[in-house]
Amino acid sequence: MAHSVAPLARLIEQFERLPGIGRKTAQRLALFVLNLPRDEGEAFAEAILDARRKIRRCTVCCNLAEGDLCPVCQSGKRDAATICVVEDPRDVIAIERTREYKGVYHVLHGCFSPMDGVGPDELCIKELVARINSGGVSEVIMATNATAEGEVTAVYISRLLKPLGVKCTRLAYGIPVGGDLEYADEITLKRAIDGRSEF
Amino acid sequence: MAHSVAPLARLIEQFERLPGIGRKTAQRLALFVLNLPRDEGEAFAEAILDARRKIRRCTVCCNLAEGDLCPVCQSGKRDAATICVVEDPRDVIAIERTREYKGVYHVLHGCFSPMDGVGPDELCIKELVARINSGGVSEVIMATNATAEGEVTAVYISRLLKPLGVKCTRLAYGIPVGGDLEYADEITLKRAIDGRSEF
Repeated sequence: MAHSVAPLARLIEQFERLPGIGRKTAQRLALFVLNLPRDEGEAFAEAILDARRKIRRCTVCCNLAEGDLCPVCQSGKRDAATICVVEDPRDVIAIERTREYKGVYHVLHGCFSPMDGVGPDELCIKELVARINSGGVSEVIMATNATAEGEVTAVYISRLLKPLGVKCTRLAYGIPVGGDLEYADEITLKRAIDGRSEF
Repeated sequence: MAHSVAPLARLIEQFERLPGIGRKTAQRLALFVLNLPRDEGEAFAEAILDARRKIRRCTVCCNLAEGDLCPVCQSGKRDAATICVVEDPRDVIAIERTREYKGVYHVLHGCFSPMDGVGPDELCIKELVARINSGGVSEVIMATNATAEGEVTAVYISRLLKPLGVKCTRLAYGIPVGGDLEYADEITLKRAIDGRSEF
């Protein structure tokens, strides 16, 4: 960014790195943050530092958590025998919004992507296997995205889990094929949970 | 943002306040920043704090500056007799990109907007008048946006400046009418500067 003062140029660069943010939008956002009232500007920076300091992965399900356990694993009211496997913490938020699902989750933090060098070792798969080996799990619902990569990941994991004697199901194709799970509306997601089928 | 841990919810809220950023995008950006490598995450927060600490308004032209003067006012090579009046620091960046304009600037920090309670007192107009009163200025080029509000602001300022014996011009309508100045391409902006007309 030529022609702008150095600290502003650096801030614009930071915004430009965010996914889906181009140069003009980065300028707009940087100037907006720069012009925020004193407290609110510091609050923005503090929210970033605070989130990065406090948020870690749940020791049970690998979802984001403030302490050792995420809110779902902490709750005594969830059915720990049913695990819903998702790619991303945002997918947990989307499914929780249906208020229909009573089981727990497992967050993979991605899906297979040979182009980006993401294979089984890069995902939280061994944590899932360990969870099932430690017993008490009767069903695993694969809720990866309905993309080719999500599908391959689901099939790989279901093959890995079947020998462990656990029932593997997947969401019904109520979710629009090719779409991202987090963009599905509540009703579609609920139908997909109800109509899940066995691998 | 229900169902997500508190520090993350706060970070999502911060992103949601930015102009043009909805809830889903805010989630995406917040998680992206959360997952940045250690140094880069802190660098993001630091860039915000740093920009807000160091950037102030140029004491001459009200543009953003790191010290007392912005880069343009600091430069000995600019023609201080010609002042280009713009609404926003981003417009300075856009005009500088043409590499055609050799004069200096004056940044109003907005335009008249009765709906938002922005009148002459909210803009840096008195600073412009003071600059002209202190002498040495022969021409003021009004380069506010080609919107109704920008136009009204330009006409108001030109009427204010004429009695001071300064020539007031405005950009030619090479810029698409109704558009924002910062989105104009370099050639259109250059033509608009060349073809400026007198009020």
